[in-house]
Amino acid sequence: MCEFTYAIVGTGALGGFYGAKLQQSGLNVHFLLKSDCEHVRQHGLVIKSVDGDFTLPRVKAYSDVQKIPACDVVVISLKTTQNHLLPQILPFAVKDTGIVLVLQNGFGIEAEVAQIVGSDKVIGGICFLTANKIAPGYIRHLSYKNIILCEYTQNYHPGGITERLRQIGKDFENAGIPVELDEDLLLARWKKLVWNIPYNGLSVILNATTAELMASPDSSKLVEELMYEVATGAKALGRTIPDTFIQKMLHNTAKMTPYLTSMKIDYDERRPMEVEAIFGNPLRMVQAAGTNLPKIDCLYQQLKFLDAMRTAR
Amino acid sequence: MCEFTYAIVGTGALGGFYGAKLQQSGLNVHFLLKSDCEHVRQHGLVIKSVDGDFTLPRVKAYSDVQKIPACDVVVISLKTTQNHLLPQILPFAVKDTGIVLVLQNGFGIEAEVAQIVGSDKVIGGICFLTANKIAPGYIRHLSYKNIILCEYTQNYHPGGITERLRQIGKDFENAGIPVELDEDLLLARWKKLVWNIPYNGLSVILNATTAELMASPDSSKLVEELMYEVATGAKALGRTIPDTFIQKMLHNTAKMTPYLTSMKIDYDERRPMEVEAIFGNPLRMVQAAGTNLPKIDCLYQQLKFLDAMRTAR
Repeated sequence: MCEFTYAIVGTGALGGFYGAKLQQSGLNVHFLLKSDCEHVRQHGLVIKSVDGDFTLPRVKAYSDVQKIPACDVVVISLKTTQNHLLPQILPFAVKDTGIVLVLQNGFGIEAEVAQIVGSDKVIGGICFLTANKIAPGYIRHLSYKNIILCEYTQNYHPGGITERLRQIGKDFENAGIPVELDEDLLLARWKKLVWNIPYNGLSVILNATTAELMASPDSSKLVEELMYEVATGAKALGRTIPDTFIQKMLHNTAKMTPYLTSMKIDYDERRPMEVEAIFGNPLRMVQAAGTNLPKIDCLYQQLKFLDAMRTAR
Repeated sequence: MCEFTYAIVGTGALGGFYGAKLQQSGLNVHFLLKSDCEHVRQHGLVIKSVDGDFTLPRVKAYSDVQKIPACDVVVISLKTTQNHLLPQILPFAVKDTGIVLVLQNGFGIEAEVAQIVGSDKVIGGICFLTANKIAPGYIRHLSYKNIILCEYTQNYHPGGITERLRQIGKDFENAGIPVELDEDLLLARWKKLVWNIPYNGLSVILNATTAELMASPDSSKLVEELMYEVATGAKALGRTIPDTFIQKMLHNTAKMTPYLTSMKIDYDERRPMEVEAIFGNPLRMVQAAGTNLPKIDCLYQQLKFLDAMRTAR
């Protein structure tokens, strides 16, 4: 089997970190950037990581998608709020025999990508990574880094463990990223929502860190109820999230150092929030299955208001 | 029938305004104050009102409840967050044959007052008043002023229109306050909650005026859903709030000039919010009847968090 070439679509904290790790491991990686392109072309990427710092003085940086060579694996690491750009990017970036790996937050994004490139080309990846971009081409990796990889199939039926999934998994493993291969993308994404929905939502709405949310009996009870609503949503789609998983999430987050969620950082920096990917898409899918998730819906409406006010005020 | 004497327990915007109107109409009114007492004793009360300004240079002001003569009608116009003081106040302020008139926000307060003075002594009043205290003894009355008066009975069974209710109503009417006498305190209080729950809650949580909440389709939909949850709560207690009432509330508020709710003003001025009176008590009563109001409960938990953080931060 040939070596895969990689395109990183969106070289922020997440795309920059994983792309740099892949290139450092010896793979051929192409980075798509916007405002940082010229800087990265001249100075490369700098990774300050708990695993050890490293610099890539030369990376292949592009601002024009038409100049990226078509790659075997196109990694989507934009914020989902930028996904309206994908129809102009993916047809250029991905080989006819290539794969699009969606490393974004939330739910339902693979289905949107499948509309552009066909569902046989799509793989989903759920990332557990704490990293920030602190300057152009300068990424700080704080903790975690593992990825769960799953095949996408139409309607999110479990997709099995394919050869290409194994190869991408091996590429990341060789780059020092722990990978788990999973058959059920839908369940994996909903398990991530168990964390993302309460903490991302409430951190913005209540202007709070994860530690503050867990320290108050009122908000920690609300966090737990929201997690159980996520489990109710998964159940409406035929998937089971066990109570033990929820209790572990609560326990682990309570022990974590105070953390600002990605949505809170976006909100504080007046960037659009990933409200549709994390809240709107899951809610709509569950509503179509005839189930209401009222507290999650309440957060969704509050976040849409705050997201709109961000530009109005 | 003899003329009633009045004690105003809590001379803020609401107590100061109604008490001053009663005294101006010729009644004998005694004002209980805390920090403003000395100022009001020396300078009286100044009312700047859309109905015409007036000054009462001399009012009977007390800071020591033991010095207030026991009155026929004791008007409770404290914030409900100060109600822990009532057991020390009411036994002194109310005559054996007297009445306690609860002019506070929220639900379930009459039952608490009945525990102190007996349920046969309690009347509830629902106020529709926009007024602020802008300095000691200085009250600005912006709009509305009417009151609905209802007898309180144990378990909030409809209490009929009594002679004493009529007399208090007449006293307020003579003072220029439009009064409606109603038989069903529970329904009247829940109708007020239709407005208070969404607007007080969301104005704090989303840092918004009523106008901003109504201008956004996301928040105005949430407001409407919260109003329908209030109606569901009333229904669980055997009362019907018609759809037309809800639609009128939405319509009227959308037309109102931008307005900061009382809870928002309390929050901004770092005072305790009336979370239990407006959210906690109604929720507990409905939960005891076997009904959940999940979105109201979500707001309740969020507000309790914000109320606690007010002192923690």
